[in-house]
Amino acid sequence: MIGADHTVHSYDEELRQINNLVMRMGGMVESQVAAATRAMTARDSDAGQRVIDGDAEIDALEREVERLAVRMLALRQPMAIDLRGILGAVRVAGDLERMGDLAANIAKRSIALAQTREIGSLWAIPSMSARVQAMVKDVLDAYAGDDVAKAERVWRSDHEVDEIYNGLFRQLLTHMMADPRNITPCTHLLFAAKNLERIADHATNVSETIRYRETGEHAEHERPKSDDTATFAGNGDER
Amino acid sequence: MIGADHTVHSYDEELRQINNLVMRMGGMVESQVAAATRAMTARDSDAGQRVIDGDAEIDALEREVERLAVRMLALRQPMAIDLRGILGAVRVAGDLERMGDLAANIAKRSIALAQTREIGSLWAIPSMSARVQAMVKDVLDAYAGDDVAKAERVWRSDHEVDEIYNGLFRQLLTHMMADPRNITPCTHLLFAAKNLERIADHATNVSETIRYRETGEHAEHERPKSDDTATFAGNGDER
Repeated sequence: MIGADHTVHSYDEELRQINNLVMRMGGMVESQVAAATRAMTARDSDAGQRVIDGDAEIDALEREVERLAVRMLALRQPMAIDLRGILGAVRVAGDLERMGDLAANIAKRSIALAQTREIGSLWAIPSMSARVQAMVKDVLDAYAGDDVAKAERVWRSDHEVDEIYNGLFRQLLTHMMADPRNITPCTHLLFAAKNLERIADHATNVSETIRYRETGEHAEHERPKSDDTATFAGNGDER
Repeated sequence: MIGADHTVHSYDEELRQINNLVMRMGGMVESQVAAATRAMTARDSDAGQRVIDGDAEIDALEREVERLAVRMLALRQPMAIDLRGILGAVRVAGDLERMGDLAANIAKRSIALAQTREIGSLWAIPSMSARVQAMVKDVLDAYAGDDVAKAERVWRSDHEVDEIYNGLFRQLLTHMMADPRNITPCTHLLFAAKNLERIADHATNVSETIRYRETGEHAEHERPKSDDTATFAGNGDER
């Protein structure tokens, strides 16, 4: 996959082994995000708990990726392109581990939500989650296929998630202002949405790592961030 | 600092150079967290904007740490303990970069807050920030002094920050329920507090890296997490 035609055959074998673990982590993260979202919409606390429990396996895989990477670095003398392949795998594993944590956080919110007043709709959460899941899937495909162009498409699509998040943030605040009984459930939805937005950010980190792996160049952090809710003054004073 | 008495003198030089960059990043992060908190309490948007602008320098230092680490790994054949020193520096730089982002997020919230209704107190934000700043300072001291015992004290103190956060979360929700005009400013405070709590989490990651650097062992993620707000059902239904 990376830097083909090594003279030492088992080098490729080892790198393939590491990348297989990364892909397994990725598959688990996809499942966890989907399951956490379903637990939320179904108000199913048992399903939420299963997502929380499932996170340990993702954590264990990350440690295994690191262990194998450190062994490779110690036993071999990798060239620059190979080094980037190994360090890229460690970095992607780190992003996936964080995504797993965020999916578990969404699952915790789903349990809390199931105990609060049922608000009419979960707003844009499921569609936002579907968009984020597609980003995760696409960036894993790009990682496996060494597809920089596809990775860059994922990177550029992050603004769509930010736009959904910004709209949701405003809707939730309006809903909270309309009826104080909505404040607790809407606060949980706010954090769940923020977690989804952060999972998408980690997917763009993976895009950047794919580019780095190929070119040796870091992105200059020029990613157009459009979560503008942090500077949203809102209409709290106008009511 | 790590694995003393190398036969090749310039190896130590290079590792020292990397660790000096990490310490500079750490100093900047301490300043940024303090400045973002002051901008919030002083309702000073110009000061907030300076924190946001200052983040680029932290990002640039992280890239420099990675560049030097990759060069060291490529040109030398580090032994296991030295490898852990280099990889540990990269990992700590990554945590510091994230802390810098979170400080910038707090600064963004400070700008938004300055535009909203002035609520009587910023609650426990300044004291929570002071606690978090102390953790960052202590863990950097532990990093520089190779002090695993001190690192473990930082790791154990994280629950204090979590407790402040949990109390603040409940206070803010109560305040929002009491008057809808508080909802927008309190939402920003909620996210600011969550950002502080995440900075403390990254400080505990640094503690774990210090232990890993010394022992080669990963923490088994047994850290007692006590942000229980995600499962807080609240009293939204009882009003």
